[in-house]
Amino acid sequence: MCQLLGMNCNTPTDIVFSFTGFATRAGRTGEHVDGWGIAFFEGRGVRHFVDHQAALTSPIADLIRHYPIKSTNVVAHIRKATVGAVALENCHPFVRELWGRYWVFAHNGDLKDYRPALDGPYRPVGSTDSEQAFCWIMQSLAARFADCPPPARLAAELETLTAAIAAHGSFNYMLSDGTALYAYCSTRLHYLVRQHPFASARLADDEVSVDFSQVTTPDDRVAVIVTEPLTADERWHAFEPGELKVFVDGAPIR
Amino acid sequence: MCQLLGMNCNTPTDIVFSFTGFATRAGRTGEHVDGWGIAFFEGRGVRHFVDHQAALTSPIADLIRHYPIKSTNVVAHIRKATVGAVALENCHPFVRELWGRYWVFAHNGDLKDYRPALDGPYRPVGSTDSEQAFCWIMQSLAARFADCPPPARLAAELETLTAAIAAHGSFNYMLSDGTALYAYCSTRLHYLVRQHPFASARLADDEVSVDFSQVTTPDDRVAVIVTEPLTADERWHAFEPGELKVFVDGAPIR
Repeated sequence: MCQLLGMNCNTPTDIVFSFTGFATRAGRTGEHVDGWGIAFFEGRGVRHFVDHQAALTSPIADLIRHYPIKSTNVVAHIRKATVGAVALENCHPFVRELWGRYWVFAHNGDLKDYRPALDGPYRPVGSTDSEQAFCWIMQSLAARFADCPPPARLAAELETLTAAIAAHGSFNYMLSDGTALYAYCSTRLHYLVRQHPFASARLADDEVSVDFSQVTTPDDRVAVIVTEPLTADERWHAFEPGELKVFVDGAPIR
Repeated sequence: MCQLLGMNCNTPTDIVFSFTGFATRAGRTGEHVDGWGIAFFEGRGVRHFVDHQAALTSPIADLIRHYPIKSTNVVAHIRKATVGAVALENCHPFVRELWGRYWVFAHNGDLKDYRPALDGPYRPVGSTDSEQAFCWIMQSLAARFADCPPPARLAAELETLTAAIAAHGSFNYMLSDGTALYAYCSTRLHYLVRQHPFASARLADDEVSVDFSQVTTPDDRVAVIVTEPLTADERWHAFEPGELKVFVDGAPIR
């Protein structure tokens, strides 16, 4: 299985603290060593880093741990290969363009006997079930809407599409276009919202603490969504299985 | 204006030497400081780095200069903004998927009054003339071929498409799907092929030399394509204006 990490904020925020704990699970506190990836939205643009090495030892992950890239929407993934070889083209998140926006997708879980009819413009490059699911979601949304609908409308459509895919197995995923972050829990996903008054937090996986009151303004709001809680001293909320949440400006809108 | 750098090889090769000279033009020996980007194919996968900072000072460019990523097809770009703001979404190279392959595109030049009819599945995310041209090329190729044709056949189609675009201005570009590198010269482009017996070379823009005989095997072959020659002591070939060359396994096939 893999693990997912997402961040959605109302002001550009770096993910160094959370990514440091998350990447520790790629070899030290977890066995997710078969590649990793992260995508940061900056305005309409996206920075996309993927690597088939373990995030604990990858020089590119080291850059991400030490270079504070500020973003309002981030999706990251550490992989333990189940379907598809350990190869760059099988690393999540995947990126496609739809309606003149980049869409970023990462999945945790396994789909059995999943062979969607991909007769639209999106085809998988690698060999994962995840990228097939992403291409089918993009194809279906492109066929359904001529332009990007509001997040709540898109989420309603996603719920229909997700139900069809999740019938094939576990399908926790994150999807973002840089304005909203859609997170679906099939089996396991947690989130928290950090906002004023900010406090300190300590990573569960590493000897690292941060006092968020020192690095924020009172207006900042940050939602962090992750497979397993990243900190030991904050209150994380578990998603219900089957629940899709949409995060905008650092908070869930549904 | 911008500058382009491409590499096509018969064995995975790093681009540290060439990129070091190229990035020097982003502030020290050139004025291309409005962002940069580079894409490396590894098998079917692609590593894509873009940054709106200057390549001379960007921490991510520093990683590329020091971390030897091996690839058989690389496309890089340093930008001096003419059309489109200095922003991440306007940094080349751009990436799209077609026929289950990633396609990477970078452009140097200016197109006047260029408004192609983009009624297919590819839409620009940023505001450059370059991304419009790329989307139109992808749309046209998708409409023309159900699957990827051999490089020579694709090149013939590209020549037709390129002529329509180049009527609007200067349109030097590089395009790759990770198996071939297509390079078109509208005004200025150079290339060389390094092969056995390998010799030393010295950058024109920096005090850096390399003895390729120490880092190659006799079977290696590497084509480097660039706007302005990168080395002072090698024989570079100038493209003819209007010429499209296709590089496969480190050599031009036409």
